[in-house]
Amino acid sequence: MPNPTACLLIIGNEVLSGRTQDANLRYIATRLGEIGIPLREARVIPDVRETIVATVNEVRAKYDHVFTTGGIGPTHDDITSECVAEAFGVPWEPHPEAWRRMEGHYARQTPPGDFNPARQRMATMPRGAALIDNIISVAPGFTMGNVHVMAGVPRIMQAMFEALAPTLQGGPPIVSAAVHANGLMEGRIAEGLADIQKRYPEVDIGSYPYYRTGGGGVAVVAKGIDGAAVKQAAHDVLVFMRACGGHPVEGEPS
Amino acid sequence: MPNPTACLLIIGNEVLSGRTQDANLRYIATRLGEIGIPLREARVIPDVRETIVATVNEVRAKYDHVFTTGGIGPTHDDITSECVAEAFGVPWEPHPEAWRRMEGHYARQTPPGDFNPARQRMATMPRGAALIDNIISVAPGFTMGNVHVMAGVPRIMQAMFEALAPTLQGGPPIVSAAVHANGLMEGRIAEGLADIQKRYPEVDIGSYPYYRTGGGGVAVVAKGIDGAAVKQAAHDVLVFMRACGGHPVEGEPS
Repeated sequence: MPNPTACLLIIGNEVLSGRTQDANLRYIATRLGEIGIPLREARVIPDVRETIVATVNEVRAKYDHVFTTGGIGPTHDDITSECVAEAFGVPWEPHPEAWRRMEGHYARQTPPGDFNPARQRMATMPRGAALIDNIISVAPGFTMGNVHVMAGVPRIMQAMFEALAPTLQGGPPIVSAAVHANGLMEGRIAEGLADIQKRYPEVDIGSYPYYRTGGGGVAVVAKGIDGAAVKQAAHDVLVFMRACGGHPVEGEPS
Repeated sequence: MPNPTACLLIIGNEVLSGRTQDANLRYIATRLGEIGIPLREARVIPDVRETIVATVNEVRAKYDHVFTTGGIGPTHDDITSECVAEAFGVPWEPHPEAWRRMEGHYARQTPPGDFNPARQRMATMPRGAALIDNIISVAPGFTMGNVHVMAGVPRIMQAMFEALAPTLQGGPPIVSAAVHANGLMEGRIAEGLADIQKRYPEVDIGSYPYYRTGGGGVAVVAKGIDGAAVKQAAHDVLVFMRACGGHPVEGEPS
């Protein structure tokens, strides 16, 4: 059976304007690879209702899992939650357990915080949503169908992802093996590398030039779910790089 | 007349697997904002022919400009160029000027480099492509219709973008003004902020909590093409934050 697939939606004008460097894609991509749910696509979209609704509906039909980050805070530009309700065609309403947690949280503050209408929006969710715990700042994320709605702040997103992870049913984990050689040029090994790729169709072989002060080189990464084939392909790459006059080393360049 | 719009396609398995942290989105987003061609969407897609062809065709119909990064090197997994040819339905063939530049480049190396079939692929382009100069490593990018095809390595991508930039016809630049207040919580200012947003429909007001050791706060960014309205909206935010008991400061938190 093939691995389940995932798509990430990064929701936020601040990423599209260049204000904010996204730090969530790499974390989620890496963790999903370990879980065996490879990330097949990521999209960065603005805080625009029609765009969010249409994109959620497009990708939730196309992938087994959709993860969203951003747009679930208390301010007017946080519209992800209500857009997911609209995408699923269900009411957007107070979630009793989320409400209880957040009301309690503000009541316990000294002096007590104000569980005002803006904050109440964070306890308002699509009907049928299952909460994703937030051990950092209480306000939960949620899962609706195959869509997992998480915060955009990396520390909170990571806590939510790890709360969610045990519930995700993955396929075999994606394993990888890297080989790199300083001073070897990509154009020099390209043809031989293509031959190795042909011999291992089940392994995904990628070639990545790198640049360092004092000269770069090329890193080759073999990736797949068949650990023995990945290892053998990487070994073939190493032998071939040596034949090209390089001094290949296992692992990524440091 | 509304500003022209842009979409970025980040092409590469290495970003989707988490191996590589994308460093191009933020650069391109920032520069496009300055040029007055706001980035409306970005997608990260794998090195898969059907996906690249379909995505290029979808977004080039939807946006005024499409920028792609990645997949134009010499190796078997570099397939962006031939996919763009397929998307446009034109032959993928040697580009005489690109060929001349690269042949000359390898001939001038000591000892002369091998302008082998793998490297010749980098001089092979969709018929009708206009070159984008590469002052870093010679192999050019290209523009085909409204699609600008650039390298994935940030230093090379930036050189290509800057070579291309003078040819891009933008609208008025997007200007922004930020205000931030340490210790002020987003949920406290959310309702008043929504009121200010309502008063300035032509300004895009975003609210971004931040976390620092020793306590965070909230940054509010006003953005738009009407500089006076942006400035006034940011001023209103500052006055309102002060009324909430905060000590707001102009600019982004450092």
